[in-house]
Amino acid sequence: MSTDHVTTARPGGARERILESAFALFYARGIRAVGVDLIIAQSGVAKATFYKHFPSKDDLVVAYLDKVDAVWSGQLKDAAEAAGPDPADQLVGMFDALSNACRREGYRGCAFINAAAESQPGTAVHDRTVAHKTAVLGWVRGLAERAGARDPGALARSLTLLLDGGLASGSLDADPEAPAVAQASARALVDASRA
Amino acid sequence: MSTDHVTTARPGGARERILESAFALFYARGIRAVGVDLIIAQSGVAKATFYKHFPSKDDLVVAYLDKVDAVWSGQLKDAAEAAGPDPADQLVGMFDALSNACRREGYRGCAFINAAAESQPGTAVHDRTVAHKTAVLGWVRGLAERAGARDPGALARSLTLLLDGGLASGSLDADPEAPAVAQASARALVDASRA
Repeated sequence: MSTDHVTTARPGGARERILESAFALFYARGIRAVGVDLIIAQSGVAKATFYKHFPSKDDLVVAYLDKVDAVWSGQLKDAAEAAGPDPADQLVGMFDALSNACRREGYRGCAFINAAAESQPGTAVHDRTVAHKTAVLGWVRGLAERAGARDPGALARSLTLLLDGGLASGSLDADPEAPAVAQASARALVDASRA
Repeated sequence: MSTDHVTTARPGGARERILESAFALFYARGIRAVGVDLIIAQSGVAKATFYKHFPSKDDLVVAYLDKVDAVWSGQLKDAAEAAGPDPADQLVGMFDALSNACRREGYRGCAFINAAAESQPGTAVHDRTVAHKTAVLGWVRGLAERAGARDPGALARSLTLLLDGGLASGSLDADPEAPAVAQASARALVDASRA
């Protein structure tokens, strides 16, 4: 397999190649719609290699969500930091990550909301979606505290509701105005929480 | 079939019995996870009867979404009207429907966001999810106009983002505070839009 097109076109270890294929396929088509055979074929690894890295499909789905978590959390933090040093501005600036996500070719909403829709509470996959949302909420809450919000927990929750609503809306009616409205609403809520 | 337990326990025509089974199964497990054979078995109709009413699974999924649309739109309107005659209060009151939905046993988020996650843009199923969100947005916009909002379109969008975020969040971390925070944020945004 090491000389075929797929392998030579994608350097990196087998695990990375599998994850890269899983990322593209799971996000575009959904978790249930994509079988491991397709991922094995697209990543160009041997079946035994695949199962050595990912004994079950759920292991791969959780690793896919780990990868999305790293990417999306990074984009949120980058957008926040690009807004300058003021934590209040950062709370508003993070919505630039939403605008950018919704504009991306092939955008299909929030990978975590989508995976939650395709899994049952109490499973490893569903737990991973909850862990992601909890981590984002905790990070936003920290910014809200530093911004001097009266009720940082409530402000953080309201901003993540706008973010999740924006992520979901982007894969439905895909209104290009929605991220801008989410950001303006965030500004109004941040200001009200400090007034 | 007419004397068996399932049939006698559920009066109504075959179409209604099929839809009732589809409603419970699709919502609880997701659209892809449930095959038509299971719905046929649970609704207690003959296979030929099923296919007479629903030639394809997608026809049934769209009918299921029609049913959810009627139920959820009704709950939103009832909650709005229960808040009294002032359209501004109705915009806030509709969030009572969110609290009630999230508290319901077996709550698994928004059927439309979930169905969008399991379908591709351009399909009948995905189009139905978009039509629902567009209809809710239009109704909220009408309330925002009557409430005297400066920018009724933006206010309606921000409130539906909070609503969608709340629906999605309810199936993830299921924070019981989330609907109350969404409602308080709605009140702040409604007030700001008229100040």
